[in-house]
Amino acid sequence: MTHALPGSADVLSRPETRLATGLARSMREADRAASSLQDFHAWFSAYLETESSEIRRIPFSELKGWRFEEPHGNLVHESGKFFSVQGLRVRNAPGAVPEWDQPIIHQPEVGVLGILVKEFDGIPHCLMQAKMEPGNHNKVQLSPTVQATRSNYTRVHGGRPVPYLDFFRNASRHRVLADVLQSEQGAWFYRKRNRNIIVETHDDVELLDGFHWLSVGQLHALLSEHDLVNMDARTVMACFPFTSPSPSGPRAFAGALARSLDPGYGSVHSPGSLRNWFTGARAGFTGEAHLVDLGSVRDWQRSDDRISHDRGVFFDVMAVDVRTGSREVSSWTQPMIEAHGQGVAAFLVQRIDGVLHVLARIGSEPGFMDAVELAPTVQCTPENYAVLPAEAAPPFLDEVLHAPADSVLFDTVLSEEGGRFFHTRSRYLIVELPAERALVEPDDFRWLTVHQLSHLVQHSNYLNIQARTLLACLHSLLGRAGGECT
Amino acid sequence: MTHALPGSADVLSRPETRLATGLARSMREADRAASSLQDFHAWFSAYLETESSEIRRIPFSELKGWRFEEPHGNLVHESGKFFSVQGLRVRNAPGAVPEWDQPIIHQPEVGVLGILVKEFDGIPHCLMQAKMEPGNHNKVQLSPTVQATRSNYTRVHGGRPVPYLDFFRNASRHRVLADVLQSEQGAWFYRKRNRNIIVETHDDVELLDGFHWLSVGQLHALLSEHDLVNMDARTVMACFPFTSPSPSGPRAFAGALARSLDPGYGSVHSPGSLRNWFTGARAGFTGEAHLVDLGSVRDWQRSDDRISHDRGVFFDVMAVDVRTGSREVSSWTQPMIEAHGQGVAAFLVQRIDGVLHVLARIGSEPGFMDAVELAPTVQCTPENYAVLPAEAAPPFLDEVLHAPADSVLFDTVLSEEGGRFFHTRSRYLIVELPAERALVEPDDFRWLTVHQLSHLVQHSNYLNIQARTLLACLHSLLGRAGGECT
Repeated sequence: MTHALPGSADVLSRPETRLATGLARSMREADRAASSLQDFHAWFSAYLETESSEIRRIPFSELKGWRFEEPHGNLVHESGKFFSVQGLRVRNAPGAVPEWDQPIIHQPEVGVLGILVKEFDGIPHCLMQAKMEPGNHNKVQLSPTVQATRSNYTRVHGGRPVPYLDFFRNASRHRVLADVLQSEQGAWFYRKRNRNIIVETHDDVELLDGFHWLSVGQLHALLSEHDLVNMDARTVMACFPFTSPSPSGPRAFAGALARSLDPGYGSVHSPGSLRNWFTGARAGFTGEAHLVDLGSVRDWQRSDDRISHDRGVFFDVMAVDVRTGSREVSSWTQPMIEAHGQGVAAFLVQRIDGVLHVLARIGSEPGFMDAVELAPTVQCTPENYAVLPAEAAPPFLDEVLHAPADSVLFDTVLSEEGGRFFHTRSRYLIVELPAERALVEPDDFRWLTVHQLSHLVQHSNYLNIQARTLLACLHSLLGRAGGECT
Repeated sequence: MTHALPGSADVLSRPETRLATGLARSMREADRAASSLQDFHAWFSAYLETESSEIRRIPFSELKGWRFEEPHGNLVHESGKFFSVQGLRVRNAPGAVPEWDQPIIHQPEVGVLGILVKEFDGIPHCLMQAKMEPGNHNKVQLSPTVQATRSNYTRVHGGRPVPYLDFFRNASRHRVLADVLQSEQGAWFYRKRNRNIIVETHDDVELLDGFHWLSVGQLHALLSEHDLVNMDARTVMACFPFTSPSPSGPRAFAGALARSLDPGYGSVHSPGSLRNWFTGARAGFTGEAHLVDLGSVRDWQRSDDRISHDRGVFFDVMAVDVRTGSREVSSWTQPMIEAHGQGVAAFLVQRIDGVLHVLARIGSEPGFMDAVELAPTVQCTPENYAVLPAEAAPPFLDEVLHAPADSVLFDTVLSEEGGRFFHTRSRYLIVELPAERALVEPDDFRWLTVHQLSHLVQHSNYLNIQARTLLACLHSLLGRAGGECT
């Protein structure tokens, strides 16, 4: 024999069990108590004091290295790298508004979003980074160990090498807990995906300035602080392979959530039924979206400092000048997208026969590379409905915004990615429907267990980025005392 | 409570166990014996005698409803439906030939390939169809219950309705065993996918002319007959959710295959390691392919009756006239692709610690919608190497073509899809490497268990169509006597 298998089922499953146990321990309450986060907050505050970057809105004419390429009018970088702002023409879209044009970010490169994990005292910890991004209204947020576009890590901009990148480029020397290409906002990006990767190492890891170890439980507890855990961290966190800790009391919320992570419990829909629903939606999708010249986009106007919709809604394309001591290069200019209004992304959840279920929706966004993905129950920017037909308002929006306080399990304002989006924030909500409330699933909606979502998130193009943030937020509820939500 | 879950784990798993048992029983030798297929062969021979279609090569000028649209030179149908033949420009492809142009079929619709399953005497049976396709050199092959493009089932051609379609359009009334969008040949199709769906019903099913019930085991046994089970049937068959029957002796081939279907046994690579390998290949892929006008394709020439490569290799675009009594419409003309030379698609397999492993390869084909998919160990048309650089010949080709007879477990010539490909056939091989033979996996190759492949095939864009045929062929070996290959 020339190959030796890792071993029989028993041997194989040993490290999996150890990881599962470590993750479960880390989600317990004590680990997530405010006291255990004092060190983190002290470190983060100290880091903020050293942060001296200045972000300034500028007219497009002050962009350096960027120009509107004639005759197409696309906003491009002279290197041909980074990204460009082009136009998108949408036709036959489902819903109340079947046709429109819009600007869109085109960035065909696949970036790396990586979290490095290492066990300390039996508890898996994540190496997180305090990172300034020009779009963050509070400048610094908590980001993954590595958050790098291909332009970053191949050093197109001539900056410093990306710390810890080698753990992810040579991940096979370590243990890979997740590795999957995930979509980004299909409303603003054209077919963009990043590589979401979680690597566990047993090597010694040097702790560099600006980095901090947080247990998996601590990191999830921080999700409930406004604008702290950034979007790139959240999407990677959604890929953690949680399995069920021991359920507590039979009716307690935490018990229902724990059972929802365990494939041994029942689910409203079988895997075959869910595949049929999802594949049917994807196969039947007839919407079309193709890139056009930014100069030819209808209903949008370019002024000195922004490209805006005629009716002042949706978003603007604008530009910033960035001066900082804390990044690979110390100053640059770039275009960004600035959304109008605050988004809402919410999961409705319900305990069904003691197992928590999540109401997921078939979402279509024009920039998706594969037609549809699973999306939050509600995802919209309420302000936009000022100019959209009344029937465009999504189902369950009122339900989510006017839920009784004791059924709101999660409610935090989080930022969209600060490297591309300027002061663009969304309110992420998890709202529980009472178990006795009858809800007939509309065609585009299905009840899924958390286990079913977690299975799908290991593959590309199933959960959109807002649903992934909410999946991480759901996991964060594992550590809450069972009593408080019963 | 308003929802009743299907039940606890025990209740939930009961129908799964019943299906698994039925599938396993169906794969046993007795069910697949030649005697049990006498009825089928009698029926199929009788059907062939009623088949009176005539297929004739014609010059492009005799195509009706099809034309070369000027100034682009694309070959299109006047309805704008069905498909078109356009050009593809490939750049930065991996391998010895980084740049080329070629004709390609563009058919953005998603068709339905469905197999209807019903249990008789505890054994699941498949409703299969004897179907004439103009490209089949033997005219009639065995096809799925439903094999319909969207043009077919929406009746663009004004033909008869598609029998049994309702079982698949309203699959949620039955039991869905598989439902997934799968790619087709990326060498000849631009981003084409079909919906592969298996539905089990308990309804009464009327048996129409031209249809026949075959047990799952019988259907797999027929894979070893040349040019009988068509490509559309094979790709759906690959999606059957086989689990492991009881392994026989510890070293027998059938036992190693049975263990390979059982996730409880070890595997050379962990799921995390395989995800890392596959995602790395997809994220790092830099090839580009985009549609161009067929008239602008370089190195190809159009004559009266074909579009051919200057060096007479690869394939031709040609046209046929079809007259038949057996299809939705009784006569039509259409363009087709006719490959030069017979393809080879082969899996190398090896028993590693008693568990059968398959050597899968990262394959890139210019028409793939997502860069790379898992492909057979070897997939090529040997004749093309007459005009390609020597280094273009694939690894393991000699190994496969010159294997000792007793290590060739499967060797059958099967046809590519007869609706688009004219007399285009490939030799499908499964070749076993001796257990003592050391093989160092090249970068693009990894050993996977059959279980690992079967898990991935439930999702889109993981296994290419040749690998899916070979996966079905692997399943067909389950019924072979353990003794013969020990």
